[in-house]
Amino acid sequence: MELLVNHRSVRSYLSTEIEEKVLSEVLLSGIRASNTGNMQLYSVVVTKDVQKKELLSPFHFNQPMVNQAPVLLTICFDINRFYKWCEARNTRTDFKDLLWLLNGTIDASILAQNICIASENLGLGVCYLGTTLYNAPEISLVLKLPVGVIPITALTVGYPAFIPEISDRLPLEAIVHYEEYNEYSESQIIEIYKDKEALLTSERFVAENGKENLAQVYTEVRYKVSDSEFFTNKLSKFLISQGFSFE
Amino acid sequence: MELLVNHRSVRSYLSTEIEEKVLSEVLLSGIRASNTGNMQLYSVVVTKDVQKKELLSPFHFNQPMVNQAPVLLTICFDINRFYKWCEARNTRTDFKDLLWLLNGTIDASILAQNICIASENLGLGVCYLGTTLYNAPEISLVLKLPVGVIPITALTVGYPAFIPEISDRLPLEAIVHYEEYNEYSESQIIEIYKDKEALLTSERFVAENGKENLAQVYTEVRYKVSDSEFFTNKLSKFLISQGFSFE
Repeated sequence: MELLVNHRSVRSYLSTEIEEKVLSEVLLSGIRASNTGNMQLYSVVVTKDVQKKELLSPFHFNQPMVNQAPVLLTICFDINRFYKWCEARNTRTDFKDLLWLLNGTIDASILAQNICIASENLGLGVCYLGTTLYNAPEISLVLKLPVGVIPITALTVGYPAFIPEISDRLPLEAIVHYEEYNEYSESQIIEIYKDKEALLTSERFVAENGKENLAQVYTEVRYKVSDSEFFTNKLSKFLISQGFSFE
Repeated sequence: MELLVNHRSVRSYLSTEIEEKVLSEVLLSGIRASNTGNMQLYSVVVTKDVQKKELLSPFHFNQPMVNQAPVLLTICFDINRFYKWCEARNTRTDFKDLLWLLNGTIDASILAQNICIASENLGLGVCYLGTTLYNAPEISLVLKLPVGVIPITALTVGYPAFIPEISDRLPLEAIVHYEEYNEYSESQIIEIYKDKEALLTSERFVAENGKENLAQVYTEVRYKVSDSEFFTNKLSKFLISQGFSFE
């Protein structure tokens, strides 16, 4: 419990290698998590090779922890293995639709989170790379992923060189609804986000970016609609080229 | 670690209520997990009310644990709260594309998995309800979810009446690839699935359904293409009606 509430993303690692036994334990914890129909439609690609990490780094926007962490885990939705089994067993199905993409994303994420917790329990630090979906086509090329294997998320894993402060969260009452969704009034919204806006780091982001408030930093600097459209278009084309359909 | 590798889905619960303090601890562990840009684009709806559970039950295909578990948690992608904040702060964005749907699915799943682990750590049992996405529109109506709040997954939570055997998994080597994806030969595939196919439960499923093998049970009975198309079409229409686009 302590472990879960004390989670922080570690972005700075020692050069210490992760022992094979430790990595296996962590990965085994991953695949013990629940998954849809116990079909295990996922794969994990382990990257330790320095040159491979260098090739992947730009697709994770050159975040320094990609090269620095001894291990990078790319966690993928994988229907290729299952299809190969179906072919060997004289049957065939098609899981290339929106429902299965989302199912696969859920399963890959749950697996990833077990890996995080197991890692932290063994003294390792981890950081999710949300860039994985942004550049899934390019990452697939580097890792030689066949059709039907889609990188969903990635984790850098290693012994921490620096453990940052725990990050802020909205109050629990802002996230949890009882029996029915409790729609927010404007004054409730302002109350919910008050502490987040008042953080020194938030004030710094606002000042550095010349914006009026933190919400504008999010929408006009960090997560611009034009970027989101660009990356959705790229991802969508990639999925459609593999036979996925969304409707 | 023990906890993670010993996970099993609990589908049978005692009527014992979950103490408020315990439920809060569990939910707090959920929101401490990593999430995209710390925007916390998720909400959790807690269902304890017997009538509400009865309303939801058919949308979870009448699985008995929905009514039996003292608590049902519906975990949602939520951009409504964030948009309301943006409006109050004189800005606006649009996270209603494929990338954000997948980001939201990842974040909701990671939150859900922390809830699972925290629950199990406190002696509770949980079960994921993969039916949530199948019937997201109907579940949204019951829980009065506004536009921009999409149920992604759900968990039944309660003290276990019965703890089942741990379920099988493919060998770790079948899931993990080093440096590059290791494409499977037919003989490797047969080896990987050998133990799963030989399980007594698998043999029973094959016999009961009059199929030749386990793969056929999956593709021709449990996860038929026609079902997947039907539910994808329903989900896709629901998302598009809320302003989502996938390309």
